[in-house]
Amino acid sequence: MALRKAQQPLKEFAFIDSLVRRFPTRAPGLVRGIGDDAAVVTLPAHRQLVVTTDLLAEGIHFDLRTASFEDIGYKAAIANLSDIAAMGARPEHVLVALAIPASCSTPHILRLYRGLMAACRPYRVSLIGGDTSASSHGLFLSLTVTGTVPTGSALLRSGARVGDLIYVTGTLGDSLAGLQLLSRRDHMAALRLPRKDRQFLLTRHRRPVAHCRFGQFLRTHRLASAAIDLSDGLSGDLRHLCTQSHVGAEIHADSLPFSSALLCYATASRMDPAALALRGGEDYELLWTVAPSKSRRLQRAAKQPGRRITCIGVIRPHGFGIRMRTEDGRLRPVPITSYEHFR
Amino acid sequence: MALRKAQQPLKEFAFIDSLVRRFPTRAPGLVRGIGDDAAVVTLPAHRQLVVTTDLLAEGIHFDLRTASFEDIGYKAAIANLSDIAAMGARPEHVLVALAIPASCSTPHILRLYRGLMAACRPYRVSLIGGDTSASSHGLFLSLTVTGTVPTGSALLRSGARVGDLIYVTGTLGDSLAGLQLLSRRDHMAALRLPRKDRQFLLTRHRRPVAHCRFGQFLRTHRLASAAIDLSDGLSGDLRHLCTQSHVGAEIHADSLPFSSALLCYATASRMDPAALALRGGEDYELLWTVAPSKSRRLQRAAKQPGRRITCIGVIRPHGFGIRMRTEDGRLRPVPITSYEHFR
Repeated sequence: MALRKAQQPLKEFAFIDSLVRRFPTRAPGLVRGIGDDAAVVTLPAHRQLVVTTDLLAEGIHFDLRTASFEDIGYKAAIANLSDIAAMGARPEHVLVALAIPASCSTPHILRLYRGLMAACRPYRVSLIGGDTSASSHGLFLSLTVTGTVPTGSALLRSGARVGDLIYVTGTLGDSLAGLQLLSRRDHMAALRLPRKDRQFLLTRHRRPVAHCRFGQFLRTHRLASAAIDLSDGLSGDLRHLCTQSHVGAEIHADSLPFSSALLCYATASRMDPAALALRGGEDYELLWTVAPSKSRRLQRAAKQPGRRITCIGVIRPHGFGIRMRTEDGRLRPVPITSYEHFR
Repeated sequence: MALRKAQQPLKEFAFIDSLVRRFPTRAPGLVRGIGDDAAVVTLPAHRQLVVTTDLLAEGIHFDLRTASFEDIGYKAAIANLSDIAAMGARPEHVLVALAIPASCSTPHILRLYRGLMAACRPYRVSLIGGDTSASSHGLFLSLTVTGTVPTGSALLRSGARVGDLIYVTGTLGDSLAGLQLLSRRDHMAALRLPRKDRQFLLTRHRRPVAHCRFGQFLRTHRLASAAIDLSDGLSGDLRHLCTQSHVGAEIHADSLPFSSALLCYATASRMDPAALALRGGEDYELLWTVAPSKSRRLQRAAKQPGRRITCIGVIRPHGFGIRMRTEDGRLRPVPITSYEHFR
């Protein structure tokens, strides 16, 4: 634990105590959680440990003028849970490192934790440790989420083979559209957008979902040769998967799944929906590849109310690069774009 | 992974590649390290997972005017390794979350990693994951270190019993003296201090040691009923142990172990060495308790060249509080002080 200022430590320890009371952890296998030098956990037999860390920095990943403390905590958790989902793993525990500027009060931080635990609760992920410090600059939070997966069955980025089909969950680009609405960069578009569409896109940005159960479903039924989560936009994340698998990819523009709200937004703001999908991060949908022989089984098995999966392309040899077949039938290279959390 | 600015991602991914090349991880049980959504690890059978996270924030834990990037990386690793040591666990892996301001260049960050890995190498701790982002404010780093311990044998803070003796490794207060010399708050004292003493204290501050092997030794030989590492100063850390064990403690001022350099420094700067020990953090020595019946065995077993252990007091009932017996035989309450990393 790291401290500062004469009165800070007392506050910190009282605060940690209040957390333990508010978010009691009765996780199976938890020997020791918050309150010791480190957490101690018994992992289930025949399972491997999966572990990821993701940080959120004020001024980079969020703006306190447009994001609530609940949103920030929630999204920090989802960013990590989504990584666990992409491995086909079951999330287990979370550790939270926080650097808190003087402008944030204890109620602010409790709201942040409330958002964080709201994201974790559906998966019974327990808060087992962390570190709290003052910050002389902005608010920083760095989460570590552990998970487990039956030995040898984790979904890696490196398993895609030429000919495999490329699938995604849900719809793409919604979160970026929500962000643009939020930052009022497209105020005119917002005005032309039906209220329910606007609300849908804002919710997709503020409260994305981590597909932990679907990731485990793909793993259990061996319906993915490789997988990744879409946190930085389709173009960047597909590129990671292709790099790790030493393959190329062909994406079909007319197959990309869009919500009706996004199509409305794209029309109103005169943007190309495909461009929003390619560079739009924080959708936290899963992208995975599957052998064509398993495609029908995948389609059948994945058929559930509210679940949408879409085949958006095919894995090509490495030399093919990453290209998109546009609606006029031409193949264009997919530009390397990056996601900006806000500006 | 989190990104910003049009060119940032390319740099980030190239940077991650360069890290993988520079710090190759061939850890036993490592299935997947850097380069996937999460790391995958096979833990040894019959061992529990131990996991801790500690963050360092610019302007709170370090000052770039007095700390090198190597120092920062090194100390971030030690802060975490020392937590693992205090559990009696064997450290295994590290994940590094970094928010990097525009003022830091790639060579700076490589130096930070070099310091970090220098601290990890003696324990064969492998870099298995992380997150790299821009920072619009200062430099932040948050590390997560995993370790393992034979099931049921972790040293907890909560096991101290009334009558147990309180021991510490090494000498106390050196790091705070080094910090004060470094921040030139005691320039006159520095001038009066022999060069080798000055160097000793600076090294103790810049390059503290995590007692991972000694922690494991205590656990293996069942020579600790409770343990904690001294990261925030004796007064604060002893209090944590007492709180978790529901006991009090009596410390003997004339038993506190000091280096000759610290005694020299205390004389030159007219400070009480005991006060430096009580509020001086970042010594990363271990404090543990042991039943009196095991004390002789402990003393015998711990006898090794270069290893110093000292009995500094005894566990008292909860109502006793935490008090120090001063050289004149009187008992005084130990004030709650906190460690300031610099000012």
